[in-house]
Order: sequence, then structure tokens, then C-alpha cells
Amino acid sequence: MITVLAGGVGAARLLRGMVRAVPASDVTAIVNTADDVILHGLHVSPDLDTVTYTLAEAGNPETGWGLAGETWQAMDALERLGGSAWFRLGDRDLGTHLHRTGRLAAGAGLTAITAEITAAWGLELTLLPMTEDRVATMMTLAPTDGTRTPADRQAGEEASGQASREVGFQEYFVRLGHSVAVESVRFDGASESLPGPGVLDALADADVVVIAPSNPIVSIGPLLAVPGIAEALRSRRADTVAVSPIVAGAALKGPADRLMRELGHEASVVGVARIYRDIAATLVVDTADAGLAAAVEAEGMACVVTDTIMSSPEVAADLSRRILEVSR
Amino acid sequence: MITVLAGGVGAARLLRGMVRAVPASDVTAIVNTADDVILHGLHVSPDLDTVTYTLAEAGNPETGWGLAGETWQAMDALERLGGSAWFRLGDRDLGTHLHRTGRLAAGAGLTAITAEITAAWGLELTLLPMTEDRVATMMTLAPTDGTRTPADRQAGEEASGQASREVGFQEYFVRLGHSVAVESVRFDGASESLPGPGVLDALADADVVVIAPSNPIVSIGPLLAVPGIAEALRSRRADTVAVSPIVAGAALKGPADRLMRELGHEASVVGVARIYRDIAATLVVDTADAGLAAAVEAEGMACVVTDTIMSSPEVAADLSRRILEVSR
Repeated sequence: MITVLAGGVGAARLLRGMVRAVPASDVTAIVNTADDVILHGLHVSPDLDTVTYTLAEAGNPETGWGLAGETWQAMDALERLGGSAWFRLGDRDLGTHLHRTGRLAAGAGLTAITAEITAAWGLELTLLPMTEDRVATMMTLAPTDGTRTPADRQAGEEASGQASREVGFQEYFVRLGHSVAVESVRFDGASESLPGPGVLDALADADVVVIAPSNPIVSIGPLLAVPGIAEALRSRRADTVAVSPIVAGAALKGPADRLMRELGHEASVVGVARIYRDIAATLVVDTADAGLAAAVEAEGMACVVTDTIMSSPEVAADLSRRILEVSR
Repeated sequence: MITVLAGGVGAARLLRGMVRAVPASDVTAIVNTADDVILHGLHVSPDLDTVTYTLAEAGNPETGWGLAGETWQAMDALERLGGSAWFRLGDRDLGTHLHRTGRLAAGAGLTAITAEITAAWGLELTLLPMTEDRVATMMTLAPTDGTRTPADRQAGEEASGQASREVGFQEYFVRLGHSVAVESVRFDGASESLPGPGVLDALADADVVVIAPSNPIVSIGPLLAVPGIAEALRSRRADTVAVSPIVAGAALKGPADRLMRELGHEASVVGVARIYRDIAATLVVDTADAGLAAAVEAEGMACVVTDTIMSSPEVAADLSRRILEVSR
């Protein structure tokens, strides 16, 4: 049994390889839900959907999110009405959000709903939301002219230069294209949340725990903020392998490198090691970072060097096999 | 100024004629919202949308609801997930519900949102929701084998034959295709509701008040159940003209005739007169019912006989002109 801590795109790529390396029914992913957002009344779970669509080979390879062959009639109509359409919900994708929202309103839990959705897509791996409680990643943006609103300026904030603004994760990530500086991140609701059904068992029972190459701050960070999960991970440290999302000082996708720097981490495999060393015994880094293996080991983690750039499902399967080897 | 009490399809047809007979900006419709329903988390206002789409010449002429040229990607996806898709929401139509739901969640009122939507469609008439409060038409279905659920039968209800079941309007109208007998109708929430912004003024200030040929029980009935609206109408009785939705003993569309009979009314223009005689001085009936004009007048209403079957916008415009003539 393999349990993978997962965000969105990076985790989806690794999982696509993992289900080629071992039977899919042996794989459980604990998925970040702190990116979830209510849009126009619909409950959207971007990371759960990215993993589902990718594993179903139904994802849109160009955007990295949403479904292939998508149409945009609803968004076009919404925009004509003057509605806010910066978060693009495709017509087919809307079916998922309608189903999830309706089932939640009917009293079903997000874990059961997720199982319905993955089963409908024919997936045999298990996706577990990290929690069924509301946890929301909130980003405090650093005060810059670019991010200050006219209202901020009207309030005279330019004089002090001290106006910070807190926004939800999707506003930062999608609306602002994560092109703004971040001062701090918090996971609203996390301290009162409970791990989702099956989550602690999946950590306790796993032969191997894998931390996917997801953003350590805003994808894996929320999982660690749910009381009980970090503790469970620490007790499995010897069996936990993390894959660095940072390759040669940069994130392959998304703002992980920027965010790490902005929040005082080193944007390198060494910085990743410092974040994970208490919960994982091993860090897998890309061959591009072979020269930093000793520095990673100096942080107290075993360092495995291999190809981590998952340009195809086959490369992802090879990476998965390597992870399982080193964990033995 | 002309104020029209409106349900969905019949009212939309009349309003399409009215805006040809007089400047659209002189026309206000007070629209039933007791058919509104939350589906998969989205606030759907079928009568407001039917009127809007029809007046925008964007309606689907075949179905009588929804938009022309619609696609069904979201519903197809929802069905694949096992979701409940008996209420068909087209992809373009979803844009309307997403906008409405998002704006309501942001604190906007349904009246303001409706004005945004009609403006976006380029409409110059005013649509006023009858109320901004939740009022829900609830139908108690008569006990018949056809409507009894397995659970009813398991509970031994077949022995007594007395199992009634209350359902929401859309479940009756759409899911059951209004092919089941109704025992009673009530408007949940109506007694605590307030008329929507502008509604009482629209009734007080109108030169003519028109009751559209909508279902008297479930389309006009809810308006009369909102405290204040029936009183306002009674004070305008002399200036109020109703158009019979019953022609030759039958509804042109929908279950008005059946419902009237089931609830103890006569399904004829005379039955319509008995429902409206306290709030309207004049009843317009179709030429097919010329023979019942005296019977209508015996109920205390003036009876005007003309062509009421709105087979084209031009016929609807002629009917509208006739209504305005008789009201003078």
C-alpha cells in the first residue's frame, strides 16, 4: 500500500506514473482541499479534480487544468451578463461541480462524493480529501503599487507603503496569476479541522508514504496544518520519501520557488529538505541537482538523485519505481 | 404605464406582444418566483428566465423553456457522474444561474440582479420579482399507485390508500411531467414574505394592470399570496384586465385545466372569472368561448371576446392593443 500526499498538477503526474508501477488499487492519495473555493455557489475542488482528470487521461494537456475537449458556453454567457469569469469553469467541468455541490447539499461527505466521481471515471486508486472541514489557504500580499487597489490608494496607503491585502488562494493563483509578492500564508480553519475519513489510517497502514513534487507551501503545507496529519507523518518518517518540486532552483510549474523565497526559505532542494526533514527520511532530487546531494544529506535526509522531470507517464512510472526501491 | 402579473410561458408571449404595442420602457412585469429552485447549489428562476429569454428572442421555441442553440455538456457530465439531471440546465442557461447565484451570495438582491440580466439582454421593459424572500410552491399529490414510492408501499400505505406526498413545484412540473393528481397547493413562506422592491408602486402607479394568461393556481396564485399584493390589486380592480389561460375548457399549455378541476374550480373561463372577479373588472376570453361571455358577466366581470391564442408576436401585439383599448 502506497500513500501519496498530493496537491494538483505535480502530484497528478506522479500518480499517473505510480499507477503504472503498482496496481492502482494499492495507491491512496491524500489530497489538498485548501484550494477549494465556492464560485457562483458551486463547490470547486481544483486539486481533487486535477488528479482525477489526469488519472482518467481526460485532462487538458495544454492548460494543465480542466478537461480536454472542453467548451465554454456557460462562461461566455456569464461574461455577457457581466459576471466574474476569471476562474474559467468549462461546461463539462461544471458537471463535476454541480454534482459535488448537489451531493454536499444533500448531506453527503466530500470523501464519499470524491469516491463516486473517481468510480464514475473508472479509477481504481483512492483519493482522500485531507479534511471534510473548511480549510482555506489565505495569502497576504506584500504592499506594492501593482497590487494596491484604487481604494487602498484613496485611503492614503501609498504614503506609508504598508498596505497589505489578504486574498484567497484562487484569487492569488488564478486571478493574479501568482505574479505578486506574498508576505505570509495561513490556512484558515485548519486548527479546528479534522483529518478526513481514512486519512490517518492511510498514513498508518502505508508501506511507503510519498510526498509528491507539489508546492511545499500551499499544496503540502495545508495537509501538515490539519491537526494529526503531521504527527502521523513524523511517526512514519523512516518510510516517507519526498520528491523535490524544485529543480535547479526553480519550480517546474507554478510559484513554488518564488513563494519559498518570499517566505524566507531557500528555493533549492536544500530548502525543500529543510521543510521536510522532520517528516521524511529521503528526498528525491533531479539529476540537475546532483551537486547538492551532499548538502541535502547534511540536513539529515538521504538524498536520491534521478530524473524527476515527468515529461511522459513512462518517466513518471520510472520515477515511481525508483521511489519504491529506495523506500525498501 | 402598464403592469403585467406574470408567470412563465403565457406571460412571456403576452409581454412579447405588449412591447410591440407600446414602448417597452412603459411595461413592468411582476413575475412569479415561487417556482424558483436551488439545483446543485444554483438559484434557478424559471419564470424570470422564460420571460427574459423570450423577450430577448433568444428562447427555445421547441421546448418553450431555455435558450435556442443550447448545448448540454454540463448535464451530460453530471449524468455520467450519476447526478440528478431531470431538470435540464443547458450550458448557456447555466451562465444565467451562475451569475444570479454568485450575485446573491455577494449580497445583491434578486430585483437588482434581474435588472442586470435584462439589461445585458438589451431589454427595456422592467421585470420585478414578486418578492425577494423565499416563497416555494408545494404540491400535495393525491394518493395513487402511480405516485406512491416503494417506501410508501413498504410502509403499508396501500392498505389505507391515504398516502399523500408533498413535492416542490419543479418536481411536480418537470420531474413528474405534471401528470399526477394534485390534492392541494400551498406557497411555503408566502405569509412572511414582503413584496419585492417596486412591486407595490408598479401596481399603484399603473394606468392598466394586466393579469397574463398564466396558470391562475401556480403562477398568479403565488403573487396573490404575498401579503400586500392582493390588497393593492383590489384597489386597482377597475383598471385591471385579466386574460383567460383557459380556452374552450383547456389550457393551451401546462396543467392549468387539470389543476383547476383537481382543486375544485371549473376549468372554463367562468371558473377563471370566479378566481379573478375580486381583483379584475374585465376578463378577456378567446373567441372559442364567446358563448360563455354572458356567464362570465354573470360573475361580475366585463367580458371581452377576442383572439387570445398567441401563435405569433403579431397576434400577441393585437391582443395587447385590445387589452389596452378595453381598459380605457
